[in-house]
Amino acid sequence: MEKKVLVETSARHVHLTREHVEALFGAGYQLTRKKDLSQPGQFACEERVDITGPKGTIKNVSILGPERPESQVEVSATDARSLGVKAPIRESGDLDGSAPCTVSVGDKSIELAQGVIVAKRHIHFTPEDAAAFGVKDKDIVKVRVEGERALIFDEVICRVSPKYALAMHIDTDESNAACAVPGTMGVIVD
Amino acid sequence: MEKKVLVETSARHVHLTREHVEALFGAGYQLTRKKDLSQPGQFACEERVDITGPKGTIKNVSILGPERPESQVEVSATDARSLGVKAPIRESGDLDGSAPCTVSVGDKSIELAQGVIVAKRHIHFTPEDAAAFGVKDKDIVKVRVEGERALIFDEVICRVSPKYALAMHIDTDESNAACAVPGTMGVIVD
Repeated sequence: MEKKVLVETSARHVHLTREHVEALFGAGYQLTRKKDLSQPGQFACEERVDITGPKGTIKNVSILGPERPESQVEVSATDARSLGVKAPIRESGDLDGSAPCTVSVGDKSIELAQGVIVAKRHIHFTPEDAAAFGVKDKDIVKVRVEGERALIFDEVICRVSPKYALAMHIDTDESNAACAVPGTMGVIVD
Repeated sequence: MEKKVLVETSARHVHLTREHVEALFGAGYQLTRKKDLSQPGQFACEERVDITGPKGTIKNVSILGPERPESQVEVSATDARSLGVKAPIRESGDLDGSAPCTVSVGDKSIELAQGVIVAKRHIHFTPEDAAAFGVKDKDIVKVRVEGERALIFDEVICRVSPKYALAMHIDTDESNAACAVPGTMGVIVD
């Protein structure tokens, strides 16, 4: 069986805690679901924020819901450079020692002492898909993407959960490096 | 023999014709050499320009010398998106049908009807290095880069000339996708 997976590009985005939603939008505020994402229960919000580092601001950044126990800002390495922060390459949620930034909406802002990361490329699998593909949680695989800028991504981490749907996630730098336009499929290779 | 090559990241830059140097900087103006590049005779200039597309401006872009028969703007796909232009992936000098932009310095500007490209990844070889590596001009090879974001670039074009020095050139998106910090070596693989 050819082990094909849809390659999705994650643009820069922010996850917020309840406390930070209230600090930015007001007490009791609920984020507005705009669009469901490929991962079940995850959604893009109507609301947007600006993120600022020592060297610059990126305006109009998406917020992804639902709320999380810790706020997290996922940017590309290109973005990290314009912000002027050293964002480590990390799995989502692994924030210890990650970069600081300011998140703002109009005249309201919060200071994150840490939370800015460049997401480590990964594939979401259901347990059934993982079994069919012969991989298990935390496995590292290689994924080939065809085309004008064909390449093989190594160091792709497999994440398995019944809460997931099958999809590979890369950031915009990686997507541009591979010309991974929407609908691009990757193939897990040995 | 392990076929190792230094991986250099080309940040966005501009090449200008004599005519365009004069339009931007004045009659008879000579660009100021700031720093020699790895390719013999090529240099970065003290002078900088702004480049503008329908969606935005990127300020303070390097000019590389010497002057060329046709002006050319090399950007990453990330940059092309912020400019709002559809820049094709091309070898240097292959500009037919490439994207337009405005190049400006202060209140002086030139309109390029074409010239904006995303550079196709490539390796410069001297004829001697090409012979040692067993490649010829226009060959397509794969190059492995190790590290936290290890990957194998496919579709890397080999360019052979006695005017070159051995080096692989990738753009900033590709460099970020591979964590190709200065000094990173690539290995040509089968």
